[in-house]
Amino acid sequence: MTDTLTGWAATTKDAPLVQMQLPLPQWNEHSVDMDISHCGMCGSDIHTLDEDWGPTAFPCVVGHEIVGIVTRVGDKVANIKVGDRGGVGPLAYSCQECDTCLEGHQNCCERVFVGTYNGNYPNGDKSFGGYADKWRGDGRWVFKVPDNMSSADASSFFCAGVTSYAPLKKFNVNEKSVVGVLGLGKLLFACHRGLGHFGVLFAKAMGATVIGLSHNDNKKETAKELGCDDYINTHNEFDLARYRKKFTHILCTGTGSDFQWSTYYNLLHINGHFMNVAAPEWKFPEIIPIQFITQQISISGSAAGSPATMQEMINFAAEKEIKPWITTYKMSDVNTAISDLRAGKPRFRFVLEN
Amino acid sequence: MTDTLTGWAATTKDAPLVQMQLPLPQWNEHSVDMDISHCGMCGSDIHTLDEDWGPTAFPCVVGHEIVGIVTRVGDKVANIKVGDRGGVGPLAYSCQECDTCLEGHQNCCERVFVGTYNGNYPNGDKSFGGYADKWRGDGRWVFKVPDNMSSADASSFFCAGVTSYAPLKKFNVNEKSVVGVLGLGKLLFACHRGLGHFGVLFAKAMGATVIGLSHNDNKKETAKELGCDDYINTHNEFDLARYRKKFTHILCTGTGSDFQWSTYYNLLHINGHFMNVAAPEWKFPEIIPIQFITQQISISGSAAGSPATMQEMINFAAEKEIKPWITTYKMSDVNTAISDLRAGKPRFRFVLEN
Repeated sequence: MTDTLTGWAATTKDAPLVQMQLPLPQWNEHSVDMDISHCGMCGSDIHTLDEDWGPTAFPCVVGHEIVGIVTRVGDKVANIKVGDRGGVGPLAYSCQECDTCLEGHQNCCERVFVGTYNGNYPNGDKSFGGYADKWRGDGRWVFKVPDNMSSADASSFFCAGVTSYAPLKKFNVNEKSVVGVLGLGKLLFACHRGLGHFGVLFAKAMGATVIGLSHNDNKKETAKELGCDDYINTHNEFDLARYRKKFTHILCTGTGSDFQWSTYYNLLHINGHFMNVAAPEWKFPEIIPIQFITQQISISGSAAGSPATMQEMINFAAEKEIKPWITTYKMSDVNTAISDLRAGKPRFRFVLEN
Repeated sequence: MTDTLTGWAATTKDAPLVQMQLPLPQWNEHSVDMDISHCGMCGSDIHTLDEDWGPTAFPCVVGHEIVGIVTRVGDKVANIKVGDRGGVGPLAYSCQECDTCLEGHQNCCERVFVGTYNGNYPNGDKSFGGYADKWRGDGRWVFKVPDNMSSADASSFFCAGVTSYAPLKKFNVNEKSVVGVLGLGKLLFACHRGLGHFGVLFAKAMGATVIGLSHNDNKKETAKELGCDDYINTHNEFDLARYRKKFTHILCTGTGSDFQWSTYYNLLHINGHFMNVAAPEWKFPEIIPIQFITQQISISGSAAGSPATMQEMINFAAEKEIKPWITTYKMSDVNTAISDLRAGKPRFRFVLEN
């Protein structure tokens, strides 16, 4: 047993990642150790390295779409065992005591937010992510990867996948649903790149009719390749007319600052759901109350997923044999992969492989 | 049988109502005739008389919280029979053929909107409301008043009542819910006066903990009298702190233009619902996407109720023995009642009685 990891760490902003030995968090009865085999790359990794979301505590090892082999578990770990393949997403710990945690919404814990990297556990230990050889964290945030799914495929489900899955599930997408997915391509905000592709894959697997949405025709072919049943250019009046009031759900994984509610009000069916998982810096525009009322539309947001949702999501993906579109890089080529990620090259997710 | 009604009609904007004989709509196999015993007064009546919402087709008889004795039914009327007490709300007809109607959301019909007054049926006949002696309309929009409820009490449920009931029901308010109700008093927009009081009564009857919300302390006593479990002045930091993230639902039946999302984000629990039924002329402010996401809040609107919801609502009100706060006026005193309504006197609804 060792209490160190060897990770690809950023030592300052703008520096290339370098290999470095760093301490694993202190072991406790809830701990799980994993030998990392794969780690998906998320736009959040770049935002953290660039300090877009506030100061980063360097040295920092990013990566929160981790899959590995479990090598050791604490006495109180019941959901995963040595030899299993475990998966970890963006959250590594919650208080487990507040109302929100007790209700099973630990992803929205009222008291503690420990990200899988650049976070601090209650004892002060730093959290380190998956661009590394080893990971240690709380077993309540480790999920079992189903046998029929490769580790490379599994990894990116644990952040991008669940973020798109959770609202589709919450608002009961099924065979009768007509789901529009916004954000299929090279988005302005890298961290949401790939969410749209998972949105399409999950909504299709749930049996829905799925329509790609974008503000031009550029993603039409992509939408088709992904399995969309149709495509709408939201600036094309004929397209809009064809789907007037037809959508039961719109999943917004990204959109430009030219966003207008009226476009989506007109597309949404009565009691339709506009579900947003994109976090751009601009705001959604003002809302005319009567538009809500006459169409009984709801607008909502969703944050990754609770532990129960995470496990359910990966099980569902395996059962439906959902195949994400990924490109793998060797972990040692991480700096090249980052450069390609910054250039918007993923179609739709990158995965690092040890 | 007569094909005329005697109603209290407005002949022009700003004129007092005068008694006038007017034609009932043409009889058909779906028709129901009622002798009106009571009609609740809704702010919409005033807005229509004042042409606030567009031109009014004078002469106009308003009133869409109608209760009466059924005197005749068409061959295809199955839900109500001669001698029953029938109730009618703000909608009098829908196409019954579009997807929305077929799904049971006839209140949001995509093709036809025939208001109970100031509307036109597909054959061109005008619709006249309940400030009258007789009403004729489509039986699919007539609901049976339960035996244990007085006609005076029943009337105002058919617009104000259902408008508050429908979103509480849709978003599953129950014994575990903590429901905030905005708009308990003399509101800027008369048409919503009384919705808040129904919101409190229904949410209590559903078993919820109910908190009155207002931007000052003026409605504290009223909230208590209505049965609220507590009261929050939204400009009082201590009040806000007590209920931080505690509300599962907020029903907005009215609010000022100083409305800020942050107040309600901070009060709403994870996965909380902000349900709006108020239609002021101002807009809800811009929304910061991340605030939706981290709290997984939904914002929605609701429009009166479908026929099924109408009947369910009045049955539930009767079962729970909900007693609305009403003041009755003789139908012949309608002009005094309108003057009092304009002055904001109702606590909380006025009912005209033949």
